[in-house]
Amino acid sequence: MTPDPKRPDPKRPDPVQPANAEALALVHQLLALGHAALAWQDPETRTPGISRIAFARDPQVGLLTLVSGLAPHFRALRDRPDCALMLGNVGDKGDPLTHPRLMIRARASFVAPDDPARPGLRDRWLQRNPKAQVYIDLPDFAFVRLTPTSALLNGGFARAFHIAPEDL
Amino acid sequence: MTPDPKRPDPKRPDPVQPANAEALALVHQLLALGHAALAWQDPETRTPGISRIAFARDPQVGLLTLVSGLAPHFRALRDRPDCALMLGNVGDKGDPLTHPRLMIRARASFVAPDDPARPGLRDRWLQRNPKAQVYIDLPDFAFVRLTPTSALLNGGFARAFHIAPEDL
Repeated sequence: MTPDPKRPDPKRPDPVQPANAEALALVHQLLALGHAALAWQDPETRTPGISRIAFARDPQVGLLTLVSGLAPHFRALRDRPDCALMLGNVGDKGDPLTHPRLMIRARASFVAPDDPARPGLRDRWLQRNPKAQVYIDLPDFAFVRLTPTSALLNGGFARAFHIAPEDL
Repeated sequence: MTPDPKRPDPKRPDPVQPANAEALALVHQLLALGHAALAWQDPETRTPGISRIAFARDPQVGLLTLVSGLAPHFRALRDRPDCALMLGNVGDKGDPLTHPRLMIRARASFVAPDDPARPGLRDRWLQRNPKAQVYIDLPDFAFVRLTPTSALLNGGFARAFHIAPEDL
């Protein structure tokens, strides 16, 4: 019989713990990676899509990506802003499911070209990614803020932690 | 003004090319990675979720994952089988957006415990992942077939290819 993972099992404790200092240190390492996998919703069919994105945690504006108008998730994020991100590289050795990763549920909002925060976040983005200079100001590229609603750190089997949005 | 990426721009050719032999060789390398990022749809809110999954291309059954009943995508895939996968590691050097990745849209279907294909695919899974022995037969774990509907290989800037489901 297929178990129902929604029904709490009294024999099995909640496998997700509240965050501790070690978990938060790992979160900050993962947020510095520079790229993420983004799950989005197709605006027409509502079926899931996935893309690799450039990513940064801007110290003033928060979680950010820079998107080309040619990317399929450009229109998806504009029309259906709910999305989810995963951060974490898989190393060469061992079971990939034991390597840490951070999953973040978020809402996307486009940064307007005349947003007063744009010049500052643009300059900080270029400090981290100097090669973005060649496309950062093209008219079909846009910065997108990713405002987190919840997050989960998975540090390997039996090492899962709830992360509060304000800790990102 | 925000451009509409849906409207074809006559000055800009379709950036996605049909697959060639080099692209297909890269596809087969990526399919052998053993893990993927999975985009799924929350069965209640319909908002996107994302998880890291164990992955294999079984020579007889096709694309597969093995899912724990505790994973949030277990119930998601059961209730809303449309999903999307991304395969591809990010190396230590260079722009992460130039490192190859394969995006696959798929439909999930659970392999029943008494499915006649299960013993064979279970044995082949264990050959690739001997450590899965400890959980592969637990009653809340299930194999899930991921039947592809379309795929896109991104080998870096201006190197995108349509991949036919039969080439996966």
